[in-house]
Formats: sequence, C-alpha cells, structure tokens
Amino acid sequence: MMRDVYIIGVGQSTFGKLSDRTAADLGLEAVSEAIKDAGIRPQDIRVAYGARQFDAATTAQSILKGVGVAAIEMVNVENACAGGATAVRGLWKDIAFGLYDMGVAVGVESMTTSSIAGKLIPPQKDDLDGHLGLTFPTYFALIARRLMETHGAAAEDFALVSVKNHHHGCLNPRAQYRKEFTVEQVLASFMVADPITLLECCPNTDGAAAVIMCSKDVAMRYTTKPVKIAASVLLSGDYFFKKADLTSITLGKNATRMAYEMAGIGPEDLDLIELHDAFACEEIIHYEDMGICKPGEGIKLLRSGATALGGKIPVNPSGGLLSLGHPLAASGVRVIGELALHLRNQAGKRQVPNAKVGMAQMLGGMDNGLEAGAAGIHILTI
Amino acid sequence: MMRDVYIIGVGQSTFGKLSDRTAADLGLEAVSEAIKDAGIRPQDIRVAYGARQFDAATTAQSILKGVGVAAIEMVNVENACAGGATAVRGLWKDIAFGLYDMGVAVGVESMTTSSIAGKLIPPQKDDLDGHLGLTFPTYFALIARRLMETHGAAAEDFALVSVKNHHHGCLNPRAQYRKEFTVEQVLASFMVADPITLLECCPNTDGAAAVIMCSKDVAMRYTTKPVKIAASVLLSGDYFFKKADLTSITLGKNATRMAYEMAGIGPEDLDLIELHDAFACEEIIHYEDMGICKPGEGIKLLRSGATALGGKIPVNPSGGLLSLGHPLAASGVRVIGELALHLRNQAGKRQVPNAKVGMAQMLGGMDNGLEAGAAGIHILTI
Repeated sequence: MMRDVYIIGVGQSTFGKLSDRTAADLGLEAVSEAIKDAGIRPQDIRVAYGARQFDAATTAQSILKGVGVAAIEMVNVENACAGGATAVRGLWKDIAFGLYDMGVAVGVESMTTSSIAGKLIPPQKDDLDGHLGLTFPTYFALIARRLMETHGAAAEDFALVSVKNHHHGCLNPRAQYRKEFTVEQVLASFMVADPITLLECCPNTDGAAAVIMCSKDVAMRYTTKPVKIAASVLLSGDYFFKKADLTSITLGKNATRMAYEMAGIGPEDLDLIELHDAFACEEIIHYEDMGICKPGEGIKLLRSGATALGGKIPVNPSGGLLSLGHPLAASGVRVIGELALHLRNQAGKRQVPNAKVGMAQMLGGMDNGLEAGAAGIHILTI
Repeated sequence: MMRDVYIIGVGQSTFGKLSDRTAADLGLEAVSEAIKDAGIRPQDIRVAYGARQFDAATTAQSILKGVGVAAIEMVNVENACAGGATAVRGLWKDIAFGLYDMGVAVGVESMTTSSIAGKLIPPQKDDLDGHLGLTFPTYFALIARRLMETHGAAAEDFALVSVKNHHHGCLNPRAQYRKEFTVEQVLASFMVADPITLLECCPNTDGAAAVIMCSKDVAMRYTTKPVKIAASVLLSGDYFFKKADLTSITLGKNATRMAYEMAGIGPEDLDLIELHDAFACEEIIHYEDMGICKPGEGIKLLRSGATALGGKIPVNPSGGLLSLGHPLAASGVRVIGELALHLRNQAGKRQVPNAKVGMAQMLGGMDNGLEAGAAGIHILTI
C-alpha cells in the first residue's frame, strides 16, 4: 500500500553565528541549493514541511516565497532537536501514502537573532528538574559521571569524541568550527559542568538544511541514483530523568529498534551514522543503544577508532553537532542530507568509502520538564 | 484507499486571561475532557498532534504526560491561526491512510504568560509591510474602509457583527466575554484603527481545545452517532497584501472551494459555520468568499439576520473569536469541536436546530510578511 520514498536533492546553508541573516534567508539558501541539486523547478514542489524551534512563524511559507512557491499545503513543525526529523517524517508520510509526489522538508534555526533561544528561562511551578538546576549540561554531567563510575570511562574518553568529531569537521567545508584539537586542549577548555568542558558541548549555531523528496517514478526522471528512505520513525517518550539507568536513553533505543525493523536491517548493516552529539559523552551512550557495540562496550569501541573516519562504522563524519554546529531544527534535516551525500559518493574529503546504508538519528527534549522528548530515526539506502 | 475519519470526543478548557495557568495545564484540561467525552482510556491514543504558536516546546508531550501517555508518535505544529486546523489535518491523514486507528489533536495558547505573544516586534530589514506600519488591525482597517467604499458597508455593519457574536457568546458558558452590547456601545468603544473599534477586535485569550479522532470501526465501539470529517484541507498562500481586491481573501476562497469539492457539497448544504472573525469586518468577507451569498452581498446577508442564531445559516454560534476568545493555535481545534457539539445536538442554548453539516474555517498569517498565510478548512457531517 505504501510507496517507496526517495531523496533527490540536498541543500545546506552556511552554518555559524550569523546575526545579519534572517531565518527565512538561511532557509532559502538551503532550499535553493536542494532545488538545484535535484534539478527540479520550484513549482514541482507540491507540499512543504518547515521546522523551527524558536520564534517559529509560518516557517515554510516565509522561506518558500523566496522561490515563488505559495499556494500549496505547508506544515510547520516543532519537536525539540527532533524537529527536522519530524518534518522529514511528515513529508515521507505524504509521499508514501500517495497524497503528493514531490515535496521539500526544510529545517532552520536562527539562535543569534532569537530573543528566547539560549536564554535561561525560570522554571515553571511544577518543573522539579528546573528547580533542581537540571539543565542540559548539568544533566549530561550526571550521565558522564555515571559512565565513569560504571563503564570505565575516563575524562579523556569524552575529550576523544570531541577530538574525533572536530577532526571530521575540518574535512567539511560547511562546518562551523574547522579546527583540530588535542585531548589535552579539550580537557583544558572551560569547565561547564564537571566533567563536561566547553569543547565537549555543541555550540549555538544559525543555519538551515533542506531535502527534496519524491516517489520512485518521479525520482527516476531526475536521477539514476536516488537515495531510498528505508525507515522513517518518530517516537516520543522520556528523554531522561526518573530512570533507573543513566547510561541508556530508552527513547532513542526503542526508536532505533523500530527503524531497524522497518528497514529490515540490523546495526551490523550500517556503513555510517549521523547522531545527536550535543555533548561528547552522549555519543558513547548512543553507540550502545544503537547496538553497534555490546552494552557497556561503547568506550572500547570509541578507543578502537572504529567510529572515526577510516574505521568500521564512522559516526558523525560531518563533524557532528560538536564541530559542524547545531541549529536545532535544522540538524534533523541536515543529518539526513549528510547521509544522502555519502550514499551518492559526493561527500568530498569526509566521504565514507562505498557507503550503502546509513542511519540518521536526532533526539532531544526541552527544558520544560526533561521527560518530554522526541526521537526521529531515518535509515537511508542506495 | 482512504478510510473515513470520525470525531468521537471533544474538549475545551476555560478561556480567559489566566496568568496562573501553564499551557500544559490548559491543554491537559481540554484533553482530559475530550477523553472523558469519547469514553476512551488515555492509552487508546496512539498518536498525538499538538499546536501552539508562541513559546512552543514539545507541546503534545508536555500535555499528554498529564494523562500518562508518552511513548507514541507526537507531532507539534505551527501555522499561525490555522495551527489547530493543521494539527487536525495531520491526525486526519494518519487515520485516513491507516497508520493509526485513534489519536488526539490539541491546540493551546497561553498569551498571558508568553514573553513574546502580543508584543510589537520591530520589522526585519526586508519586511516592507512592517516598516509601513501594516499590522493586523491597520490592515483590516484598510479592508473595512474598502468595504465601505465599494460594498455599501456602514460602520454600523461591522458593529453588528460584534453585537451578533457577543450575543451568541452569552449563550456559551465557555466564552471569555459573556456580555451583550449594542451597536452604539461597539461604535463608542476605543478606536483602534479607524474604522475598527476595540469591540470589533478579538481579545487576547489563554485556552486550549482538543478532539479525539478515529477510524469508523473504532468509532462504532464508542458511539452510535460519530461525527464524520467529510473534508480536510490545508492550503498556504498570500493571506493578503499585493492584492488587486481587498474585499476577498483568495487563500480562504480557494481552500473553501477545495473543501466543498472533497466533501461533495456546496455552500447551500451548510447548516452552520465557525470562522475566523479576528476582526468584525473580516466575517463579512468570508460570507462572500464561502459562497453563502453572492459577491458584494455580504452586508445584505448580515443585515437580514441569516447569519445569527435562528437564521438560515448561523455563523459563529459559539460567540466566535470576538466573544468566545482567540487562543491562537487552540482556535483551529476549537471550531471543529464546536461543530461536533452542534451535530450531536449537545450545544445547549446556542444549539443550531437539526444541524447535519457544518464548516470550520481558520486562516491567518504572521506579522513577518503578511503574505505568508495558511488556511485550514474542515467540513463535518452526521
């Protein structure tokens, strides 16, 4: 009953602290590139999904008027760090169920120009986490400390994730920070929430990303190598807190399992992964939750070099959130575009050789009660 | 291929200026009522759509955790005043295409507690409308003036819309303002943007609304009188500006036409309408765009009393945005719930007798370039 859905166009704006750019402007840069990459005309787009976390106001409309597209169905979504994945999932449904043949998903964030992004918001009356000071860095500091207690992690391991992803970012011309760091430099950077240092936190980033998606018969008109979306999963649940085990995120684990089932593959089939490394220690947890190593062996996998470019299963070859940057709602679309580039063998110096299967994961929650999270998982094949 | 989709539960929170209530709290009030109305258990909900315009942060998750629902797909949407309709449309697709059998759509707005809602935002560099002072009241003032020039409207006609809808609101225990006004009182209220007076503008409102929707076979387990969604349309386009004719909103007109076609009905089949009366003059334009009178005859229709309760085609029997209130993203869900109550003959003192077919319309745009609008139209039958 469902149709296969393909990606035929990928676009990404400049990433950085861009106070002179509007969100619409950044979104337009990404959408224009995706349209050009796909080789379509703007009017071929029959449905649009826009994602933006902060200051959202008819996101897709304000972007698409820049390419002269207005009188179509447009849906704007929000889902914390999984907002971009939510846009792709919505578009996937519309095409899979035959409602439309082609559409665009665009995610954008302008943290710099927002009056609310990145500001400390006083906790609401029923927000126990907030009153306890449980913000994202402090929560991940608890997780990191737990990994040290139970998983044999050392402070150097978290630093190593940052070193790896910054090295990858140096190979990506679109990365916000293109600078190599040593483990010592990462450890010596400003202490944000012990043991998490500044270079183990993703930066604030302005930017946008877009993908053009369509049905198989339409895709074949534009390319002989369309990238197939083999799984699209969106799941909510506790992001964290009230959990027995701080070293696993059940929401991400369950969503990943659903995606493997939908695609009919397992972790051993993956050639690369793009995932939510908002904090360096988080990446290690995802290794275990995704099953690319056994439970408790994430540190070992990291140290072996398997997740670096050149390794068995490169993770965040783009540079990840840590080096490439993290414009919240853009990231969920960006990771999917990154996979498509690798599967098309067009990822330049950061190319994962012979990549055939990739998984893009974004998950997150909001400060308003950290339980309220969302996870978006997409598996792409060629 | 598509399945019919039904509404089996309706809920609405208190509406008003409620500075001591959080958005999650208001949403929970509406969802809890809808669950009770439907006679389902919270765990029967398999997918959730949340809509919120300002300060959105995992809207559905933060509401549904109040009824113990977490690990399902949740999508949060934004689309100006059509945000609530966008949530219903998304849920409609999921059920129509067989992805899920039952779900909830909830819209909520807390204007009072928002740091950004209702604030004047300085126009961005490319926002010509903003630099010209074209905010919503001033734009609708141009429309009202045009109606006076070309359609024979008098200031008293706009006041009459407000008098009518406030009268309806007096019959609705959930309305924010339950007070009768005379034409003279409306005209004598504070002049906002000539000729629009304060009582011809919808108020700022905090509140939430929810509907439970499901497939036909599931609906039949809970009720013998489910309300059918005969049409669900979401369309974007120019809300206004750069238009030859100020007395018609093409976006709304086109979306309505699509809805009639989808439902296989015409305007003559409608028993009642709930529509976007953000400003009194706007209601008159919608009469003509919806075809419930001939072009140019909206004023005549209003004066005849046909659109008041007891008339041929009551418009905004709830009290409309003018009297019931307008919590932005909640309104698009609320109008659909209002229709369902009438079709079930449960609308109390404001009941439209023998109502079998109703149309709910919400449209709007944002101040960031008034062209970027959205219209959501739903036609319900029993």
